[in-house]
Amino acid sequence: MVNWKLTLAYDGTDYRGWQVQPSQVTIQGELQEALRRVTGEGPLPQGSGRTDAGVHALAQVASFALRAAIPAENLRRALNRTLPPAIRVLEACNVPPTFHARHSTVAKTYEYRVFLEKPTKGSKLADYGTLCPPFLARYVYAYPWPLDFPSLVRAAEALEGTHDFLSFAATDPDKTARAEMEASAESKAAEAPTSIRTIFSSIWQEKLLEEGTLLIYRVRGNGFLHHMVRNLVGTMLDVGRGYRRADEIPAMIAARARAAAGPTAPAQGLFLHSVEYPD
Amino acid sequence: MVNWKLTLAYDGTDYRGWQVQPSQVTIQGELQEALRRVTGEGPLPQGSGRTDAGVHALAQVASFALRAAIPAENLRRALNRTLPPAIRVLEACNVPPTFHARHSTVAKTYEYRVFLEKPTKGSKLADYGTLCPPFLARYVYAYPWPLDFPSLVRAAEALEGTHDFLSFAATDPDKTARAEMEASAESKAAEAPTSIRTIFSSIWQEKLLEEGTLLIYRVRGNGFLHHMVRNLVGTMLDVGRGYRRADEIPAMIAARARAAAGPTAPAQGLFLHSVEYPD
Repeated sequence: MVNWKLTLAYDGTDYRGWQVQPSQVTIQGELQEALRRVTGEGPLPQGSGRTDAGVHALAQVASFALRAAIPAENLRRALNRTLPPAIRVLEACNVPPTFHARHSTVAKTYEYRVFLEKPTKGSKLADYGTLCPPFLARYVYAYPWPLDFPSLVRAAEALEGTHDFLSFAATDPDKTARAEMEASAESKAAEAPTSIRTIFSSIWQEKLLEEGTLLIYRVRGNGFLHHMVRNLVGTMLDVGRGYRRADEIPAMIAARARAAAGPTAPAQGLFLHSVEYPD
Repeated sequence: MVNWKLTLAYDGTDYRGWQVQPSQVTIQGELQEALRRVTGEGPLPQGSGRTDAGVHALAQVASFALRAAIPAENLRRALNRTLPPAIRVLEACNVPPTFHARHSTVAKTYEYRVFLEKPTKGSKLADYGTLCPPFLARYVYAYPWPLDFPSLVRAAEALEGTHDFLSFAATDPDKTARAEMEASAESKAAEAPTSIRTIFSSIWQEKLLEEGTLLIYRVRGNGFLHHMVRNLVGTMLDVGRGYRRADEIPAMIAARARAAAGPTAPAQGLFLHSVEYPD
């Protein structure tokens, strides 16, 4: 058996998320089917974590073992011929048998993209407030209210560090259970699953496109609870809109209650940006 | 009655083209339904021409009359709230009763976007041959073979001017009939419909994106036959690939036979770029 690592990009819009589910079209299911057609073997590829319905990936990582010996470039090319254009294999390589796409993770980075339909206060760039072009609509949250950029930046800074992020975790019991499966290596080693995570960096940036302005949030951490990035973004957007203040964030964290934080931002703006493993 | 002109952008991927058809989701049908919901009136908006299934628009134009008096900005905003994000109303304005989106047309411009999966010979830009990102796949023709850029440029130049473009028109009788409805004002004035059209400009450009290289073909003319732009592009790509020569184009035109020209390029790369009317 040879252990494989794949790096994948996908448009999640038309899929019911990563994980295989009965009679649903999922990324994991499409990849398993492509592997079956290409190799005659149908291993269930393990992802670095589950992405929800509508969430995209720039570089998701999956691992699985194959009996057949195949040159890596041939496997990559054959999978890309078999998979739909919405799912691409960027890289395929052999890895040691101990490698596991989820268990071996040391850090993950997510990106959230907001398209500004209104001018941004405090922006250094020109105001390009406009309609969200149909060709971007699947990949952004088209935000219809003005945002104060410096407030977003302060809110993001307040999230960095090691905290109990329970206020930002999905409350659905099933979903909380699922979230625990995404726990970092450290917390998995502990007695019970915890909602303590470390955010290494949490940054908003502006990006000027021909069609308008994107605000891009990038967050890197040792693990994320279910819905955590979308709940962080929904809360920060409330701050940017003036409904909450950035200096309320520490109290939201301390409350350890979902109701203390803001709403869940839509799935379509979220991208799994990258996954890191030990060298 | 007030006569209206709307400018629309749409992602055509999930629609069966512009024109209303029984039990099919179309752009014209979605717009008619949105007008009905917003105004209580359900005029059938007339487009500048029909776009096929999967073809996009950056600025399609539609016209219709309404009894209700509505401020233009209110109509635009209400339609955008009602329409799906894949269809956007960029502009709404009142026009004289004589204005008709199709009959009043004096020129149209189409754009065709090719994503290069292989390095381009003769390109002035760096070679970014790579996989087509899933987030572009709906809006380009991902071309898997190397192309010679100077040959594309020469082929495009050979198409400019007034010619009988019968070799580049869809041969399906129904579709040819439909094509005639797109005839320019001049040819409609003539006794019989003709396949003579004037191409004012026909240009290939390279555009370097973060994700790779696009080749963009832009063609402006007084009217286009059904499938004409896709047939021009399919023929030029055969030239770029080395299957045909640019200096064969005049003979292809002279043949007045579909078989003399090249294949039809896929719908997904085609955009209606803009429509021009008399001042």
